[in-house]
Amino acid sequence: MSDTLPTLAVLGGTGAEGSGLAFRWANAGYPVIIGSRTTEKAVAGAAELNALLGKDIVRGMDNLSAATAAEIAILTVPYSAQQSTVADLAAALQGKILVDVTVPLVPPKVNRVQLPEGGSAVVALQQMLGDSVKVVSAFQNVSAHHLKDLHHNVECDVLVCGDDIPSREIVIKLANACGLRGIHAGPLQNSVVAEALTSVLISINQRYKIAGSGIRITGLPE
Amino acid sequence: MSDTLPTLAVLGGTGAEGSGLAFRWANAGYPVIIGSRTTEKAVAGAAELNALLGKDIVRGMDNLSAATAAEIAILTVPYSAQQSTVADLAAALQGKILVDVTVPLVPPKVNRVQLPEGGSAVVALQQMLGDSVKVVSAFQNVSAHHLKDLHHNVECDVLVCGDDIPSREIVIKLANACGLRGIHAGPLQNSVVAEALTSVLISINQRYKIAGSGIRITGLPE
Repeated sequence: MSDTLPTLAVLGGTGAEGSGLAFRWANAGYPVIIGSRTTEKAVAGAAELNALLGKDIVRGMDNLSAATAAEIAILTVPYSAQQSTVADLAAALQGKILVDVTVPLVPPKVNRVQLPEGGSAVVALQQMLGDSVKVVSAFQNVSAHHLKDLHHNVECDVLVCGDDIPSREIVIKLANACGLRGIHAGPLQNSVVAEALTSVLISINQRYKIAGSGIRITGLPE
Repeated sequence: MSDTLPTLAVLGGTGAEGSGLAFRWANAGYPVIIGSRTTEKAVAGAAELNALLGKDIVRGMDNLSAATAAEIAILTVPYSAQQSTVADLAAALQGKILVDVTVPLVPPKVNRVQLPEGGSAVVALQQMLGDSVKVVSAFQNVSAHHLKDLHHNVECDVLVCGDDIPSREIVIKLANACGLRGIHAGPLQNSVVAEALTSVLISINQRYKIAGSGIRITGLPE
C-alpha cells in the first residue's frame, strides 16, 4: 500500500452504519466509494454525502465494481445479506482486507444475543473466503446515530479482531480516522464479543431509555 | 427477603476472584460464608479475610453447608468444576438465587474466545437446575487483582444477565456494594458477552502490557 490513503469501498454503504462510517472516512481524506446493489442507489448515497461534506469526493458504484476498485472493502449489509453479498465478490476481494461490520441480529428480538451455530458470523465468512482475503471484524458496536455529526464525540471503543496483525493495524487506523479508538482485541474468533455485544447495548438502551450506549475499555494507557 | 442483608455463600471462595468479592461484601456488611471443597480450606480462607477486615464476620464451610445456610450463592469455581460443583448442590439451591461468575476459559489459550457448544455456560447451568433456581450471570469481567485493596477504584462495570428481573436487581445491589456499577444487560442468554469478554480482556492485557483491563458502558445517566 502506498503512502497515499487507500481507497475504501463501503459495501451496503447506503445504510445508516455504512453511510455514517463513509462520511467520517471521506471527511478524514480517504477516497471512498459507496457500494450498493444498484448503481443508482449508490450514486444517490454518494451524492448525499458529498452534499454534507461540501466536496465532490465520494463515488457510488454497484458492490462488485466498488470492491474491484478499492484496496479495502468494508461490509455493512444486514446479517441476512452477509453471505450472499460476499459470495458474489469473492474474486474481487482476493489479496485485500475485508472489514466485516455485520451484527448477527435475529429480528424481532434484537435485544437478545442469538449467535449463529458455531458462534461467530465473521469466522464463517473467513472460512468461505479463504486465507488470501484478510478478514477483520470491527465497528459492530458503534451506534450509527451520531456518526454524521462531526461535533458529536462518539463514546465507543472499537474492538478490532483478526488473524492477520498488520491488517488489524490498518483497521485500527481506520477507527482512529473516524474519531474512535481502535483496540487490538485478538484473533478473529474473539469477534464473538463484538457480534454479541450489540444486542446487549440495544437491551441497555431500552432498559435505561437512552439512545446510543457504547463501551470503553478501561486500564489502557491514554 | 428481610430488611437485613441476605447471607451470601461464595462457593469456591478460596480462589482469587471469590475471595476478593467475599472481602468486599463482608466489608459492606453482608454476612458472608466462604464455601470450599473441604471445611478446612474454607475456614482458613475465612480466617484470612477476617484478619484483613479486622473483624470476625466471615465463616467457612464446605460448599454444601454454605449453600444450605445462605440465601444467595455465588459460584466462583473454575469452569472445569462448574457443573460438577453445582450438581451436588442442586437441592440446597432450590428457591434461591445462584450468581454464576464462571468464565468458560479453555487453557492454555485463555486469550482466545472458546465458548462451549450452544454458546453460554450459564444457560446450560440454568437448564440443569430448573426454573426454581434463579440463575444470574455477573462479575466475569472483574479482575480479581485489586478487589482486596479498598483504596483501589476497580474500573469495570458489571453486566448482569438473568431471566428474572427482581433477582437481577438484587445482584446489581451486590455489585454496587463492591464499589462496582451493576447494569441490567438482559436475559440470561446475553451472558455470552460477559463469558467471552474475559478472553478479550486477557488478550488486551497481553498486547498492551497492562494488568487489569475492564469495560465501562457509556451513554448511561450518571
